[in-house]
Amino acid sequence: MAKLLYHITMSLDGFVAAPGDDMTWLSGLHAEPNPVVERVIGGIGAVLMGHHTYAPATTAEGEVYGGRWRGPIFVVTRDAAPSPGFTLVGDLGEAVAAASAAAGDGYVAVLGATTARRCLEAGLLDEVLVHVAPVLLGDGVRLFDHPGGTRVRLDPVELSHAGAITNAWYRVA
Amino acid sequence: MAKLLYHITMSLDGFVAAPGDDMTWLSGLHAEPNPVVERVIGGIGAVLMGHHTYAPATTAEGEVYGGRWRGPIFVVTRDAAPSPGFTLVGDLGEAVAAASAAAGDGYVAVLGATTARRCLEAGLLDEVLVHVAPVLLGDGVRLFDHPGGTRVRLDPVELSHAGAITNAWYRVA
Repeated sequence: MAKLLYHITMSLDGFVAAPGDDMTWLSGLHAEPNPVVERVIGGIGAVLMGHHTYAPATTAEGEVYGGRWRGPIFVVTRDAAPSPGFTLVGDLGEAVAAASAAAGDGYVAVLGATTARRCLEAGLLDEVLVHVAPVLLGDGVRLFDHPGGTRVRLDPVELSHAGAITNAWYRVA
Repeated sequence: MAKLLYHITMSLDGFVAAPGDDMTWLSGLHAEPNPVVERVIGGIGAVLMGHHTYAPATTAEGEVYGGRWRGPIFVVTRDAAPSPGFTLVGDLGEAVAAASAAAGDGYVAVLGATTARRCLEAGLLDEVLVHVAPVLLGDGVRLFDHPGGTRVRLDPVELSHAGAITNAWYRVA
């Protein structure tokens, strides 16, 4: 059965995008080989993303990870314009079900903070893999946003590092 | 010469305190031995903290780290009440100078997000050591807060893990 994995790169201070959804801070940070990234990309059967991630990601038909992965991509959205290679689904549960079916025994990689938060709060998220980058951003889109606070316990799956990147991989407890 | 080290435990999503300065989320998370923590505590010559950290920390004269460290503690504050074992200094630069002199060749451990941010923005912070704990808090006091965003590049000193804790240690570039 497919597992939902929130897979993302984060600044040390917990931001996955700079203010204004700016992703240029990532440039050069994944320059060194990272065996965990390669392993995970090889295990992804489908991708699930939200509106915010979809818009700038539509650089090529059905490609993410800078073209290193191709396959079925599901977008949770009620109003985005369709694009070849992307399946648009309005309801989160239906999108997760469709992505899971497409992924088979592989991972559904959840890309994007809003969709990941919705999956986590709906009890659908299985794992979190964060690549912690050596930079402080101070503001922007947070890894996980739950106004008022909560406590989600995580169980480590694998903690490692590759060059300047820390790979922190957990199962949602 | 002493080095200023921002030393703190953080949730995976970048919070060092839950809403309302609540620190109870930390309980049990440092249960396993962590050689990096022991090594750092052994190298600390003085502690620098702000008003927020001072108030709840004044449990015993000149003790922090749950009583595992005793020594000169400097508090950056203009209005806190004095307490034995703590030196209160109004000006950040003077507090850093006094703590550095007291620390000799050791570390000045900067405890507390506000004081660390002020040191960083004043160009006084040398290193950051974050213990990343396996929990998501969703809200609270952030590791580093700079409204509008910035980019502070870090150079890894040592990346490691101990049990469920990831130790991420950097030099400010």
